Amino acid sequence: MPRIDLEHIAQTNSTGYPAPHDAAVAGRWVRRLGPASGMADFGVSHVVLKPGAASSHRHWHEDEDEFIVLLTGEAVLVENDARTVLYAGDMAAFPKGEPNGHHIVNESGGDCVLLAFGRPPSGDCHYPDIDLSWTGGGYRRKDGSGF
Amino acid sequence: MPRIDLEHIAQTNSTGYPAPHDAAVAGRWVRRLGPASGMADFGVSHVVLKPGAASSHRHWHEDEDEFIVLLTGEAVLVENDARTVLYAGDMAAFPKGEPNGHHIVNESGGDCVLLAFGRPPSGDCHYPDIDLSWTGGGYRRKDGSGF
Repeated sequence: MPRIDLEHIAQTNSTGYPAPHDAAVAGRWVRRLGPASGMADFGVSHVVLKPGAASSHRHWHEDEDEFIVLLTGEAVLVENDARTVLYAGDMAAFPKGEPNGHHIVNESGGDCVLLAFGRPPSGDCHYPDIDLSWTGGGYRRKDGSGF
Repeated sequence: MPRIDLEHIAQTNSTGYPAPHDAAVAGRWVRRLGPASGMADFGVSHVVLKPGAASSHRHWHEDEDEFIVLLTGEAVLVENDARTVLYAGDMAAFPKGEPNGHHIVNESGGDCVLLAFGRPPSGDCHYPDIDLSWTGGGYRRKDGSGF
């Protein structure tokens, strides 16, 4: 049955972010639809953001295109130099290699739901706002030290 | 600006289907969001189906995962052995190699809008309902003759 049945797909708020950077995504509840439905060409995450939660820390990937569409609710797309309110049906694309740190934040009083698409990156990821980077396959501080 | 501005992305109802198979998708209006936004890892099509239009002929790919989400309106997902009404927010996944011919048909009286995700296939595509196949990089009849 190709139709996605969300009730039968596990939902988690786990994160690989080391403390204290994990707190910002504690209210991000993710279902990974690709493995659940037998797809491997690209990843699809169904994401519920509770009020106050962020989709990630503001970041940009050297080698991963990302695409999001908001399904319900309201959220704010935060970039280097802009804030844009997104409503249901709004979409955004983040091409690899563009040094425009971005994330989605739920500043509303209710849940919002989005789908996020991408392929697993092998290259580095940059976090302009916090002392964190993804480099060499792991999270490090910007001085290169580990957590 | 990562937010997708549909008004500035060209919309087309062109198709590669040879006649008479082109008629079923005459009311399918597509915007290709990947090239328009600088993404290359996967394709994203914004598709408006007018009443009576289909997303494609019923088909399955040997080597392309496909994923759709309905954004507005109502449509019917038709498979080998099932018909499922889809509403806004409903999603479906079609893993490569599963011989379950599928398409989305707008049987309602108003437009419906969906997003379709995939990567360009290099392998064959099969159309169980009509005398058409995609093989060797082109459309052919099932006896191998060209159009």
